[in-house]
Amino acid sequence: MKHVILDCDPGHDDALALFMAMGDPDIDLMEVTTAGGNQSLEKVTKNALSLIELVGEKVPVYSGSLTPLVKAPKWAGYIHGESGLDGVKLDSPKTEVAGTDAAAEIVRTIMDHPDKYVTLITTAPLTNIALAALLEPRICSRVKEVIMMLGAVHTGNVTPVAEFNAYTDPEAAKVVFEREWPITMIGLDVTHQAICTRDVQARLAAANPGLAEVVNGLMDYFRESYKDEECFPDPPTHDPCAVAYALDPSVVRTVKAPVYVETKGEVTCGMTVADLRAQAPKDCRTQVGLSLDTEKFWNMVAKDLANLKVGGRK
Amino acid sequence: MKHVILDCDPGHDDALALFMAMGDPDIDLMEVTTAGGNQSLEKVTKNALSLIELVGEKVPVYSGSLTPLVKAPKWAGYIHGESGLDGVKLDSPKTEVAGTDAAAEIVRTIMDHPDKYVTLITTAPLTNIALAALLEPRICSRVKEVIMMLGAVHTGNVTPVAEFNAYTDPEAAKVVFEREWPITMIGLDVTHQAICTRDVQARLAAANPGLAEVVNGLMDYFRESYKDEECFPDPPTHDPCAVAYALDPSVVRTVKAPVYVETKGEVTCGMTVADLRAQAPKDCRTQVGLSLDTEKFWNMVAKDLANLKVGGRK
Amino acid sequence: MKHVILDCDPGHDDALALFMAMGDPDIDLMEVTTAGGNQSLEKVTKNALSLIELVGEKVPVYSGSLTPLVKAPKWAGYIHGESGLDGVKLDSPKTEVAGTDAAAEIVRTIMDHPDKYVTLITTAPLTNIALAALLEPRICSRVKEVIMMLGAVHTGNVTPVAEFNAYTDPEAAKVVFEREWPITMIGLDVTHQAICTRDVQARLAAANPGLAEVVNGLMDYFRESYKDEECFPDPPTHDPCAVAYALDPSVVRTVKAPVYVETKGEVTCGMTVADLRAQAPKDCRTQVGLSLDTEKFWNMVAKDLANLKVGGRK
Amino acid sequence: MKHVILDCDPGHDDALALFMAMGDPDIDLMEVTTAGGNQSLEKVTKNALSLIELVGEKVPVYSGSLTPLVKAPKWAGYIHGESGLDGVKLDSPKTEVAGTDAAAEIVRTIMDHPDKYVTLITTAPLTNIALAALLEPRICSRVKEVIMMLGAVHTGNVTPVAEFNAYTDPEAAKVVFEREWPITMIGLDVTHQAICTRDVQARLAAANPGLAEVVNGLMDYFRESYKDEECFPDPPTHDPCAVAYALDPSVVRTVKAPVYVETKGEVTCGMTVADLRAQAPKDCRTQVGLSLDTEKFWNMVAKDLANLKVGGRK
Repeated sequence: MKHVILDCDPGHDDALALFMAMGDPDIDLMEVTTAGGNQSLEKVTKNALSLIELVGEKVPVYSGSLTPLVKAPKWAGYIHGESGLDGVKLDSPKTEVAGTDAAAEIVRTIMDHPDKYVTLITTAPLTNIALAALLEPRICSRVKEVIMMLGAVHTGNVTPVAEFNAYTDPEAAKVVFEREWPITMIGLDVTHQAICTRDVQARLAAANPGLAEVVNGLMDYFRESYKDEECFPDPPTHDPCAVAYALDPSVVRTVKAPVYVETKGEVTCGMTVADLRAQAPKDCRTQVGLSLDTEKFWNMVAKDLANLKVGGRK
Repeated sequence: MKHVILDCDPGHDDALALFMAMGDPDIDLMEVTTAGGNQSLEKVTKNALSLIELVGEKVPVYSGSLTPLVKAPKWAGYIHGESGLDGVKLDSPKTEVAGTDAAAEIVRTIMDHPDKYVTLITTAPLTNIALAALLEPRICSRVKEVIMMLGAVHTGNVTPVAEFNAYTDPEAAKVVFEREWPITMIGLDVTHQAICTRDVQARLAAANPGLAEVVNGLMDYFRESYKDEECFPDPPTHDPCAVAYALDPSVVRTVKAPVYVETKGEVTCGMTVADLRAQAPKDCRTQVGLSLDTEKFWNMVAKDLANLKVGGRK
Repeated sequence: MKHVILDCDPGHDDALALFMAMGDPDIDLMEVTTAGGNQSLEKVTKNALSLIELVGEKVPVYSGSLTPLVKAPKWAGYIHGESGLDGVKLDSPKTEVAGTDAAAEIVRTIMDHPDKYVTLITTAPLTNIALAALLEPRICSRVKEVIMMLGAVHTGNVTPVAEFNAYTDPEAAKVVFEREWPITMIGLDVTHQAICTRDVQARLAAANPGLAEVVNGLMDYFRESYKDEECFPDPPTHDPCAVAYALDPSVVRTVKAPVYVETKGEVTCGMTVADLRAQAPKDCRTQVGLSLDTEKFWNMVAKDLANLKVGGRK
Repeated sequence: MKHVILDCDPGHDDALALFMAMGDPDIDLMEVTTAGGNQSLEKVTKNALSLIELVGEKVPVYSGSLTPLVKAPKWAGYIHGESGLDGVKLDSPKTEVAGTDAAAEIVRTIMDHPDKYVTLITTAPLTNIALAALLEPRICSRVKEVIMMLGAVHTGNVTPVAEFNAYTDPEAAKVVFEREWPITMIGLDVTHQAICTRDVQARLAAANPGLAEVVNGLMDYFRESYKDEECFPDPPTHDPCAVAYALDPSVVRTVKAPVYVETKGEVTCGMTVADLRAQAPKDCRTQVGLSLDTEKFWNMVAKDLANLKVGGRK
C-alpha cells in the first residue's frame, strides 16, 4: 500500500491521475494539494474538489501557491481551456478546501507519520514541494520517494527542450532536484507514449459507464487542444503515468542519472538536463523515465477507472 | 509606536540593530526571526537568543530558513568570524526558540493583527520574507511597510555592484521587491556613511557602561575584519541604519525609484538595480536611501543603548 | 600631435566629435571608420562622408560592421531620426568610401605605423574594434591608447544601468575591455555634464558662422529628442567628450578601475561594471571618467569649430 | 566535384577528415584554415601543415583566430595531448602558412569564385567562420553550403548537453546559425556511431600501408584518451563524418529543424538546441544529422586513405 500525497493542477490529464489514485486499491490517497499550473490556483483547486466529489470520495484538498517561486505566472489555458477542465461541465464543489497552506500541510503530514511512510506524487509545477522543502528540510530524508510528472530528457513541449511543469517554475524544480530524496522523473519521453487514441478512449469509457461522459468530454477536448497547439493527432495523457509508475515501476523503463535544472538559459530555461553521458554514480538519487509499457499502462488506467463509481467507491 | 518584526542574522551590526530595537521606547519588538546569512542559521539563532538574554529582554525568537531560496548557501564568516559574533564571549542562551517556522510565524503575526499594524525590519538575506509572501500573499497588502538593510544603488561590497544580503539570496530579494508592499531599501549608499570610528565607538561604550565590554568587543573585531577584507579603516555598521530609519525617516535621505534585482548576470548577480534615470512614477512603492545624517544617527544609537541594562530594561 | 582613427556612427553628437577631430590642429585624423549604431551602417557612413565634405576635408572613410558581434541589431532612430542626422539637410556625398572593411583597415593602419603611433577614439558600438582585435591580436599592444565614449559607472540611458553603445554590442565591449591596451572610458557620468543648453548652442553657432545653420539644426533636433525620449531639458553631447579628453586629459576627472561588461544579465545586460570598491591594482589598464570640466570642454569645442570652414580648413 | 574550404583544428579525428578531403577524387580542397580548439592555434596549424606534407599534397594553410569570439579559450589537450596529435611523431613542417588571416581569406575565396562554388566544411570551433560572416555578410548567400562537425541534438560530451566545438565558442556558433546559409550539423548523434574499433582500425591501416603507422599511432592514442576521459571502449572519430556527408549525403540520416545556440545557460551553455517538436517550416535552412550508415562510412574513409601515398598522391 502506498500512502500518497498528490500535488496536482487539474487539468485534463491530472483528472485521470486523480481518478487512478482514488480508484486503485493499493493507493491510500492521504490528501491532495494544488498549485497554479494548468490553470490558476483558484480554478484547479475547484476542479480537484469537483472531481473528488464526482466519484464520491472524501479526500481533503489543500490549496497552495498562487504563483511560482520566482518566475511570473503563466498558466496553460491554451491547452486546458478557460476552466482548466473545458469539455465537461462538473458540478460546483459542495465541499471546501481543508486548508490553504498546502506546503505547510505537506510538512505536517510527512513529519507526523513514520519515516518513509509518505510517497509524494506530483503532476503540477513544483512550487508547493519546493516551499515544503524550504520550510522543513527534514522532510527530504523522511519521504519514501518523490515521483513527478515533469521534465523531458530529449524533447520539450512549451519550448524545444523544456516541459511545461518544469518551465512554469524552474526555480522550484531546481530546489527539488537539489534536495536529498529519491526522485523519479516521469517526463515527456515517457508520457508522449501515453497517447490516448480514439480506441484507447473508447476502452477507458467502457471501463466505467458512469464516468464515460466525463472521460469522453475530457479526452475530446484534450484531443482538439493538442491538435491545434502541438500538432498531435491524439493527446498524450501525461499525469497518470506518474501514478502508474508509483503502483508498478515496471511500467516505465528508467535509468539513473544526475539531473540539473536550467534556470538561466535564453533558449533552455526550464530544461531538465539529465546527464546520460556515462553510468550514474552509485549514490545517484535521481532516475528518469525513458519509455512506457503502453499496453500495461492503459490496462492499469482502465482497471482503476472501473473501481470508481459516480457517487462513491464501489 | 512601531510594532516590529525584526528579521536578522546576528552578526556584529545586527547586534546593534537588535539593541536599538529593544532599547527604543518607540519600538514594540513583537518578535525576532532569523535566517542564515552572516553565519549559519544555527549560529545566528543562538546569537539572537544570547543578545536578548544579555539585556534581560523577553522577545520570542523564531528560526527560519536554513538555506537561501534557490542559491547555494555561503555565509559571511570571513567578516563575522566562526561564531558570527567573534570578539565577544556571550553566555550560551538559556531560553529556546519559540518556533522553527519563522516564515509561517511572520504570516500568523501579520494576519492576526490589524491591517497596517506590523512593520517588517530586515537586516538579513530575505529568504524568510520571500517565503512568507509566497505562503500567504495577503500579508503584502497588510504590513505597514518593509524596511530593509540590503542592496546598493552604486557600489557593492561582495562584488563590485552587489551587497551581501542581496547577493546571498537574490531570488528572495526579487520576490520581495516584486510584491505590492511599501519598501524602503537602506543600502550601502547609506550604511557606508555609518562608520564606527574609534571616537564613535568610545561614545557608544560610554552610553551604557554595562554594555561597554560587549560593544567594544564587537566593534574591535568588526574593525579588524573590515580592515583585512574590505580595506576600510573603520567598520560600517549597516544594520542599525534600518532601525534608525524606522524610528525617524529624516535620518536617511531617500528617493522613490523602481528597483529590480538581477538574478542571472555573470558579474552583476544580486545587484539591486534602482532606476534613477527619471522621476519615479506616482504609484512607485519602493524607495532607496542615498545618504545618512550621521550625527543624528549616532545620537539615536547611543540613546537606545543607554536605555538598555545588562539584566533588564531600566 | 595625436594620430587618430575615429570609429563613429554619426549621429548628432558624433558630428560634433568629427568636427573637433577635423578642426583641432593637434589631431591628425588618419581615417574614419563607421559601424551601425545611431542608425544603420549605410546611413551613418553616408553621414560621415557628408560631414567631411561639408567642411572641405579629405579624410578616408571605411565602413565596417553591418551588425553587432552577436546580438541582434537595434539602431537609435528614436533619438537621431530617420537619417541619423535629422534636423539638417546635408548634400549627398560626392565621395565614396575608401573601403568596406573597417576592421581590417584598422589592423593595417595600426600595423603599418610605428608602435604606439595610433590613438583609437570610438564613439560607436565597439563592433569594429572587437573584430580588429580578433583578427590581429598584436594591435592591442601596438596602439597608443583607446579612448571611448561608452558605458556608465552609475546610471545608464537605454536601461537603468546600461549606456547605448555598450548595450548595443555588449559582447564587443567585453572583448575590447578584456584586451591588453590602455583604455579610457568616457561614459555617461562625464557626458551627462556636457549639456548643450541654448546658451551653449548660441556660443557654438557664433564660433563659426558658416557652420551655424548646421550646428543649430543638429542641436535643435537633438534637444527635442532628449526632451521626448529621456526627459532632459537640453541634450547631453556625449561624443565630443572623448575627443576633448584625447586632446587634454585634464578636461575629465578619471579614476583607475577594473571594468567588466555584463553580457548575460536580465536587467543589467550591457552594463559596464567598474569596480570602485578599493584602489585599483597597480597594473590596471582601464580608467573611467567621473566628471567633466564643463567650461573648459565647451571652450575646446568652440575653438575647434572655429577652425573649420565650410568649403575647407581655414 | 566539391570545391571545399576545410576549417579545422587537427586533432586526431581532424587528421582523418583532412586525409579524406585530400584523398577523395570528388573533392577539390581549395585551402585549409585553422582555429584554436583541440589545441592552441599554433599547434593545430603546425599539425595541419605536417599532415599535408606527409602525404605530399600542396594545399595552402591559413591560420586564423587565436581565441574564441568572446569566451576565454580552453583547448582540448586532455583528449588530443600536448601536441594536439599525440601518439605520432610527425616531421616539423617545411612549408609555412600562406597567411594568418583565415577569416579574411575565407571571404576572399568565396567572393572571388562564382556563386555557390565553395562548400565550407568545418571540424573546429566556428570562430573563423563567424568572423568571416561578420566581415562580409554577402558570403552567406554565396557559399553552396556549410557542413559542420559540431553540436549534439541529444547528448553532449564536454557537458551533459554540449559538444566541444559548440561549447568552445558558443557565440560564434550562434552567429553562424543565425546567418542565411544552408547548414548541415553533423553532431554527436551521428559521430558517436563512427566508433573506430580495433577491427575498423586494422582495416584503415590495411587500406594504405604507407600511412598505417600514422593511423595506428593516432587511433591508439585516441582510444586511450576516450577510455580515460569519456568511458568509451573505442574512440568516436567525429570529423571525417562531415567530409563523408559532403561526398555522399546518404551516409547520414538528417532532419530539417531550426537550431538555436544557448550562450547564457548555467548548465546548458554551448548547447545546440534543435527544435524537433514538429515538422520544420518549409523555409528552414538548417538540418541536423541523427544517425550514420556506419558500414558505408568506413568504406568511404578506407577508400580515401587508399588514394593517398606518403610522398604524394598516387
